[in-house]
Amino acid sequence: MRYFTARINGEHKPGVAMGNKAALFSDLGIEEKSLLAWLQKEEAAPSFREESFQRDLQELVLASPIVHPPHDILCVGKNYMEHIKELRGDLGEEPIRPVPHYFGKRCSEALGPTDAIRGFFSLDAGLDYEVELAAVIGKTGRDIPQDKVWDYLFGFTVLNDLSSRTLQNHHVQWYRGKSLDGYTVIGPWIVDKEAFTRPLKLELTTHVNGELRQKANTEQMIFSLEELVSELSQGITLRPGDMIATGTPSGVGMGFSPPRFLQKGDCVRMEIENIGVLQNLVTDA
Amino acid sequence: MRYFTARINGEHKPGVAMGNKAALFSDLGIEEKSLLAWLQKEEAAPSFREESFQRDLQELVLASPIVHPPHDILCVGKNYMEHIKELRGDLGEEPIRPVPHYFGKRCSEALGPTDAIRGFFSLDAGLDYEVELAAVIGKTGRDIPQDKVWDYLFGFTVLNDLSSRTLQNHHVQWYRGKSLDGYTVIGPWIVDKEAFTRPLKLELTTHVNGELRQKANTEQMIFSLEELVSELSQGITLRPGDMIATGTPSGVGMGFSPPRFLQKGDCVRMEIENIGVLQNLVTDA
Repeated sequence: MRYFTARINGEHKPGVAMGNKAALFSDLGIEEKSLLAWLQKEEAAPSFREESFQRDLQELVLASPIVHPPHDILCVGKNYMEHIKELRGDLGEEPIRPVPHYFGKRCSEALGPTDAIRGFFSLDAGLDYEVELAAVIGKTGRDIPQDKVWDYLFGFTVLNDLSSRTLQNHHVQWYRGKSLDGYTVIGPWIVDKEAFTRPLKLELTTHVNGELRQKANTEQMIFSLEELVSELSQGITLRPGDMIATGTPSGVGMGFSPPRFLQKGDCVRMEIENIGVLQNLVTDA
Repeated sequence: MRYFTARINGEHKPGVAMGNKAALFSDLGIEEKSLLAWLQKEEAAPSFREESFQRDLQELVLASPIVHPPHDILCVGKNYMEHIKELRGDLGEEPIRPVPHYFGKRCSEALGPTDAIRGFFSLDAGLDYEVELAAVIGKTGRDIPQDKVWDYLFGFTVLNDLSSRTLQNHHVQWYRGKSLDGYTVIGPWIVDKEAFTRPLKLELTTHVNGELRQKANTEQMIFSLEELVSELSQGITLRPGDMIATGTPSGVGMGFSPPRFLQKGDCVRMEIENIGVLQNLVTDA
């Protein structure tokens, strides 16, 4: 199933999609007012009856499935070898070092799949895109062994880890350049894990104004989903609604020479196989 | 005034201290169930009547004033020159680089002023302490000029930015070594900004088992509170309850040769002038 959050009359309404049809939680007798609140109950999904799905999915405007993540996004840098190669030297570190670079990305309010991205160009002209598979935690856990990681996942979504590269590099620690308002795009929905086979083999792409920039497959990740989630959970309790962004492949703007950063008016289209599409226009306000 | 959160019958109860006396929010006719919820209203503090303060402050067990911070803690590394000098080379970077290193510190649940610190010694033997002045935001704001920063503050508290040094350095980005469960101690309360004069001139100390380890004054900060909060707010909306940890002075365990990390049974006592004391015992479970 695909779990979404729609904007209806100025409010956020969680729901579930089945094919081209949709049902809001309120149509399904689920009383929680947000997908996050429902995930936090840690209850098994009920079985949905097809006749409950009476809305046309395409007529809903979707927000981020989780608008206010419970914690900063747990991110990993440098998890695709081709991306490490394209950055060689650019971040002022040794060329190839196969260690997961975990960092936090503040996300007060996530953007949805068709929202406008505000580029803070007066702060930093180096606005960049990063398509990433994000895993969503469904069950509270710590010290999770790799072979149990799947039990703690709820599902997967697409995440654009927007980054202002000058700020990211200037402050050495990446946090500030990753954490400007609206720098996390999530969606279009969370697809529950039952829709995936293991190991994950999903194509990721980014197009900017129709031009292919990023294309890779999650099977190329240096550290697997299981390795990342298991390692992050050592000493850190992961909780429902937490999101783990698994790194971006090559083709980011910073990787070109000269760099090809995002500009006002650009359209960024990201897609991950079996999940869906983010398509966001860049504005300057 | 000093704003605290007490543990009473297994529940967290916010309150206010006046001298040695205390009143719970419920004694004062404030209906919010947490200090965070009250801060989020962004209302001016009411004037409290002395006769409402009927409880003995010393008989209350205090938790962190904000148990579940709304976002990861906004931290800055390397903000005291003597601390930069003691680390020279240790973090594999150029010796002195006067740029604020902003990073996020996950804090699902903060420890209070007398809680036990769990050292994750099987993950990392290098458990270290860092006393820091933390500013608490009281008013939503973005792009705050330095001369307006004070208007957006609610007050100040003491924060122990516990760190597992091997993890911190291994992953290059500091997030993981800073974010283990219980690695943020906050308290003993938040002292509202009216109790302070500008520029801030507050002595900070850390004693471990009675031995003085850290001693400095906030006037030695390389970047002032106003500079840090203003810079962080450029492009990032700060919200009530957000906490900005302003960096630690020299004397951390990592700064000794050989390092003097925390061990099971150690007592860590931190004090900041005009605010108060954290006193936490290190355990291994």
